Amino acid sequence: MSQPIDDFFAVIPAGGIGSRLWPLSRAESPKFLHDLTGEGSSLLRTTWDRLLPLAGPGRISVVTGRAHGDKVEESLGDIDLANVFIEQEPRDSAAAIGLAAAILERRHPGVIIGSFAADHVIKRQRVFEFTVRQAVAAAREGYIATIGIQPSEPAVGFGYIKTGQELIIDEAPMAALVERFVEKPDLETARQYFADRSYLWNAGMFISRADVLLEELRINEPELHDGLVEIAAAWDTDARDEVVDRVWPTLKKIAIDYAVAEPAADKGRLAVIPGQFDWDDVGDFASLWTLISGGVRDGVTVLGENTNVLSDDASALVVSQTDRVVALIGVENVIVVDTPDALLVTTPEHAQRVKSAVNALHDRGQDDVL
Amino acid sequence: MSQPIDDFFAVIPAGGIGSRLWPLSRAESPKFLHDLTGEGSSLLRTTWDRLLPLAGPGRISVVTGRAHGDKVEESLGDIDLANVFIEQEPRDSAAAIGLAAAILERRHPGVIIGSFAADHVIKRQRVFEFTVRQAVAAAREGYIATIGIQPSEPAVGFGYIKTGQELIIDEAPMAALVERFVEKPDLETARQYFADRSYLWNAGMFISRADVLLEELRINEPELHDGLVEIAAAWDTDARDEVVDRVWPTLKKIAIDYAVAEPAADKGRLAVIPGQFDWDDVGDFASLWTLISGGVRDGVTVLGENTNVLSDDASALVVSQTDRVVALIGVENVIVVDTPDALLVTTPEHAQRVKSAVNALHDRGQDDVL
Repeated sequence: MSQPIDDFFAVIPAGGIGSRLWPLSRAESPKFLHDLTGEGSSLLRTTWDRLLPLAGPGRISVVTGRAHGDKVEESLGDIDLANVFIEQEPRDSAAAIGLAAAILERRHPGVIIGSFAADHVIKRQRVFEFTVRQAVAAAREGYIATIGIQPSEPAVGFGYIKTGQELIIDEAPMAALVERFVEKPDLETARQYFADRSYLWNAGMFISRADVLLEELRINEPELHDGLVEIAAAWDTDARDEVVDRVWPTLKKIAIDYAVAEPAADKGRLAVIPGQFDWDDVGDFASLWTLISGGVRDGVTVLGENTNVLSDDASALVVSQTDRVVALIGVENVIVVDTPDALLVTTPEHAQRVKSAVNALHDRGQDDVL
Repeated sequence: MSQPIDDFFAVIPAGGIGSRLWPLSRAESPKFLHDLTGEGSSLLRTTWDRLLPLAGPGRISVVTGRAHGDKVEESLGDIDLANVFIEQEPRDSAAAIGLAAAILERRHPGVIIGSFAADHVIKRQRVFEFTVRQAVAAAREGYIATIGIQPSEPAVGFGYIKTGQELIIDEAPMAALVERFVEKPDLETARQYFADRSYLWNAGMFISRADVLLEELRINEPELHDGLVEIAAAWDTDARDEVVDRVWPTLKKIAIDYAVAEPAADKGRLAVIPGQFDWDDVGDFASLWTLISGGVRDGVTVLGENTNVLSDDASALVVSQTDRVVALIGVENVIVVDTPDALLVTTPEHAQRVKSAVNALHDRGQDDVL
């Protein structure tokens, strides 16, 4: 076993609900608190366990909302509570990761931080660690580093990173510059990217020195930067609540991709390490079905502890949070999500549209089931 | 309004669970206790109301199982409890109707009885009454009369009655002899029957003098007849329980079609009156959907009081006994039956196979949900 990295601190933004996984994911029970692989741990806990060998237990922080602080602490029994950063309200990823960077830079000057989503699924731990260690090495050289996933299929659901010129960094043999980011492509373009091999999936992982990230933020979003620095200065003092209440609501909502990563790429300051491990953001029930069925959407796959699923000439993903009998007769290629107060029936092809049902329920005033 | 018929007594066998309508229909909550049309009354109550103008409230009897006696009395607040005939255990329709015939013949010698299933849906009340009155007139002439439904489509789900020679009965101008019964046909045969117009659906309605029915039963099933007569002799005495307990379990299980109707047809003693009213046995969820959507299985049809059904590009029958949110996204032509302890998802084409799921659950020992 390798030792944790001395100057490294992991940051887990745990904010998104995962609306496309409703009614499994809820405002009160977001995606990252669910065991989506059936392995017995929440995605958050699995993320924690994955980062432990790299950072050590005292050097992993979580940025989460007020509503989930207790559940995060419950899920991560061994977390140092000083490393749970509660957001007053959600203000997108630049504020979340920037807050962690600003606090950690004050506490540990020169620290390298790596941010990893709380609700992704990754397999091949040793390859993951090997990749992150290279990203840390690139960060130590002053780059903002990202990890791009080597595509396993011509996916249209992810943004891509175009790999550019190779970088010569001793401990990061696979590092290259990011040439540019590209938005989610159509299928034809995705096929070209897949054949090209220099296009990687943007998995939203960023590793850099905290001060480098903050400086990039200062250049691109000075008000956001200044607000975060002001909050960080007060964070470990009695003034925290007063400053947070005053400043946080004024912060600009912007994704870290736009506030930091893309401008850095334009300046040749963004490095990418290709990740050869299996990665899935489990963005909807279609990808969940593919994930837990090993890619074979045949027969009936059950997620949950319900042993009362009965099928006759059916193929389905059944996600059950009840112990009701679920009988499927003659239905093909359906997704059934059975919870105590809401039932969803859809298909893999319509899985992305679950979010619009969530919106419709919100518009109808039924936030109690969202 | 016409007066009730003096010498007529209606019999409602209320025995079947309606397994093809599981999980709506249950052993504890059989089909006839449900409001399948959304009109606010159980099928049993609607059957009662339909027969009231023909028989009057004191002359309608119900034959039902021990488990349902209380609910039958509750559903029919105005029934004379002496006319609720509780079966010790189910022994098929010849025993059920034969029991009623034997008891009613003792109480009202020469009475004409008409048996009508508790769980069918009929529209056009005046035509129904007109038809039954003709059947009663034929019964008064000594015939066993049945009502055959004029087909509205080439159905393969029903048995047929082939109409034979016309009968000359003053008050039954449409009466004819039954030439023969035929089993459920294939589609090609059903189309021939439909074009022919002399083939009627067998709706299982039988009208005859009680003594005529019992005599036919005596000839064909003498032991069953003798047992029923013995029970009927004891029914209104202190000996009822003793005789029932001893004799009922020995009675042959046989449908009235085989024990009475077909042999009578062979002897030219079975009359048929064509019924020009709308009739449906609501045998499965496909026919239920057709029934309550008026034949148009388009969009989403909801049966039940659930106002939380949300659909996006879906066509479905939703039967809901809960107030859960039910979201249907991109699913076509599905049937969703949502109850507190069981969920069914199927299609109209597979609706008949619901019964096999019920059997599978029974085999798995899950009778608590049946």
